[in-house]
Amino acid sequence: MDQENKIPAVTEDLLMKSIRTKKSSIALSQSSDEQRCQALLAMADALSKDSSKIIEQNSEDIERSQRAGLSNSLISRLKLDEAKLNDSIEGLKKVAFLSDPLGKVEIDRELADGLFLQRLTVPLGVVGVIFESRPDALIQIASLAIRSGNSAILKGGSEANLTNLAIMSSLIQGLEHSQLPSDSLCLLTTRQESLALLHLEKYIDLIIPRGSNELVRFIQENTKIPVLGHADGICHLYIDSKANLEHALEIAIDSKCQYPAACNSIETLLLHEDIAAPFLSLAIPAFEKLGVLLLGDEMSQSHGILHKVSEIDWSSEYLDLKLSIKVVSHVDEAINHIRLYGSMHTDAIVTTDSEVAKKFMFSVDSSGVFHNCSTRFADGFRYGFGAEVGISTQSLPPRGPVGLDGLVTYRYFVKGNGHIVSDFSSGLKTFTHKDLSNEIKS
Amino acid sequence: MDQENKIPAVTEDLLMKSIRTKKSSIALSQSSDEQRCQALLAMADALSKDSSKIIEQNSEDIERSQRAGLSNSLISRLKLDEAKLNDSIEGLKKVAFLSDPLGKVEIDRELADGLFLQRLTVPLGVVGVIFESRPDALIQIASLAIRSGNSAILKGGSEANLTNLAIMSSLIQGLEHSQLPSDSLCLLTTRQESLALLHLEKYIDLIIPRGSNELVRFIQENTKIPVLGHADGICHLYIDSKANLEHALEIAIDSKCQYPAACNSIETLLLHEDIAAPFLSLAIPAFEKLGVLLLGDEMSQSHGILHKVSEIDWSSEYLDLKLSIKVVSHVDEAINHIRLYGSMHTDAIVTTDSEVAKKFMFSVDSSGVFHNCSTRFADGFRYGFGAEVGISTQSLPPRGPVGLDGLVTYRYFVKGNGHIVSDFSSGLKTFTHKDLSNEIKS
Repeated sequence: MDQENKIPAVTEDLLMKSIRTKKSSIALSQSSDEQRCQALLAMADALSKDSSKIIEQNSEDIERSQRAGLSNSLISRLKLDEAKLNDSIEGLKKVAFLSDPLGKVEIDRELADGLFLQRLTVPLGVVGVIFESRPDALIQIASLAIRSGNSAILKGGSEANLTNLAIMSSLIQGLEHSQLPSDSLCLLTTRQESLALLHLEKYIDLIIPRGSNELVRFIQENTKIPVLGHADGICHLYIDSKANLEHALEIAIDSKCQYPAACNSIETLLLHEDIAAPFLSLAIPAFEKLGVLLLGDEMSQSHGILHKVSEIDWSSEYLDLKLSIKVVSHVDEAINHIRLYGSMHTDAIVTTDSEVAKKFMFSVDSSGVFHNCSTRFADGFRYGFGAEVGISTQSLPPRGPVGLDGLVTYRYFVKGNGHIVSDFSSGLKTFTHKDLSNEIKS
Repeated sequence: MDQENKIPAVTEDLLMKSIRTKKSSIALSQSSDEQRCQALLAMADALSKDSSKIIEQNSEDIERSQRAGLSNSLISRLKLDEAKLNDSIEGLKKVAFLSDPLGKVEIDRELADGLFLQRLTVPLGVVGVIFESRPDALIQIASLAIRSGNSAILKGGSEANLTNLAIMSSLIQGLEHSQLPSDSLCLLTTRQESLALLHLEKYIDLIIPRGSNELVRFIQENTKIPVLGHADGICHLYIDSKANLEHALEIAIDSKCQYPAACNSIETLLLHEDIAAPFLSLAIPAFEKLGVLLLGDEMSQSHGILHKVSEIDWSSEYLDLKLSIKVVSHVDEAINHIRLYGSMHTDAIVTTDSEVAKKFMFSVDSSGVFHNCSTRFADGFRYGFGAEVGISTQSLPPRGPVGLDGLVTYRYFVKGNGHIVSDFSSGLKTFTHKDLSNEIKS
């Protein structure tokens, strides 16, 4: 990246912190499942013990932010009361009891007599996390990192600085009561440092941004470190000519209204022309009752939509009670619209025609394609992953909702007994390539 | 990337080609295993039929390159005689019969009564391939792309332009005798186009560079498209204090000399101080006999190495009969050296101490860590993958030797029957999260 003008240089202090964290990750990568579980429980204990201090520091953060004129919605995200903190501590304990993502045998193969290949899951190393406002995110991500054997460098919003420092102090106390290195977690407190972090591809293996689309996009555009996350969630629902309109309406309402600020809520509804009139005659009053502003193309305006949609709407993530509507003449037109304007997050079709559904699901290249259900199911917990590290909208894995396995990679382990390649190229020895377990553990 | 000054703009023609190729990938992604196999066999037939024309065009490329003063080693890489072409055609047929990488069920789960999640492997979309010199690479990569349901945009070295055009014409004829779109493959012929390709992250899902370290590094630094490949292969062999020295010497010689130009050959030998003297007394004459230039640190010079190693050597990939040697006092020193100077490719240890081996293999974060065998085994064919798309040295998957599965991704397919999230948040319905097959197919 050559946007170095925007990104401050790495200070000596940040470099030393990064090297220390990277070193701790070597020890951490050799820790046992039990040691990591125990460390998480010790972290939970330390948080419980320090809870009044943490809440006190949070009150100071809130007072300062109120004086600085922070909006009410940001203040409410910043607030960490006893109930929220307890929820976070309970969440941390749950992470402790998730099944170990490390040491899974993905390939177990005899390559030749006495020569064996194993592909095992191992930690990534150091995870860099940049998050905004919500201090409970610090607890969640620190616990996911440690559970998966990774060290983490974390930077929260400056408005939550005191809260984050108090939380981090407890988490490190927890680590000190464990067999893991207490350097495994490192909190940065200045914006300069968190930006300079983007230069440190030698010490940081993955960046997880938690915040606004702008934050994510800025990070994606300004680092060579892989980024787990997504900027936009422009999700679509297509209602086919052969659709159960009652289901279609329920799914449309749920996909838009159940939690409009979520990335997996829809922004655009695509309607087959054959059902546009009857569907909209039901949908317009239903959406209006729920306070949803409907914007339509010419065709859907002819069926009663009042406001005109504009080109920019098709690529806008409203995160609000606002929905753009387009009438299409064929499933192909819906597919093309989604491939052009979508963000490879989650797109759904409502149809009773399984051939049309199949075509849609294999032609839309989003990370999630849904048939006859709400896009709101696109979520790590709803998928049964037990945790969600983030949702990725890239083409390559990991994509879609990413669980703990998004924080691990694999390594090839080959063991021989003096084996050399020239014996195979000379024909003295031959490869057997025999899988040792029929069932690949996952 | 802001190195736009270096990278030419996308021409209208290139944009149209990219859009056509992307469109073809939608059809291709819905093709059956049988259709893709048949297409590869038709491509092989077309190449056989056109072989004399291809060889003729190759002779013209060679004559022109000789007149232009191309080095003999490049001319020999450029040359495509009947034997080499036949090998490539045989290779293509083998790819046809590799098992289908698409449609593998990675997750098969009931989320709730009537609501099902499947994670299936699907093609990436469009693969961009930029390769140097060897025209047989065109046949190999085109076949791997089609086998895995991907379209490909390819650009070869300009010295092989006539050969590549002739090959591509045959491959497209083959596609025309298949049920796959003939737009699935697209050859670019100018350097301007292949560079402008790096801008097209909207139409290209993966770039595979095949060529010099400089080519790979340039591409990695100048595109937002994911790159599969590696620039450097700086591999190490560490010989521990408790090593079978006879094995150690055989492995060292094989790792260095069996094919020194390969990325999985070692550049640096690390010796425990306890065995440095006896090992070098055997190794110095053995390596000298094979014409290997040895460069040593002070300690190894005291054991008879003539030439002094310099700091730059530790991060140099010689690709030649040259080896740098360092004496270390502990396995930790070897691990630290590898983590500092290595390129996360393949690093090996020779030891009879399983605890030391384990420490080494879990502390070195390379994609391959080997115990008591040659680093030269790091290869897709030797691992039993049947094909090798490239070797990746990044932290995240895919890493190490990458087979056909490096050209696929996955997609989450969710099917319901009118399911909406509000029924679950209200408690009306509950998640079951029941895996439907105990054995996850791989």
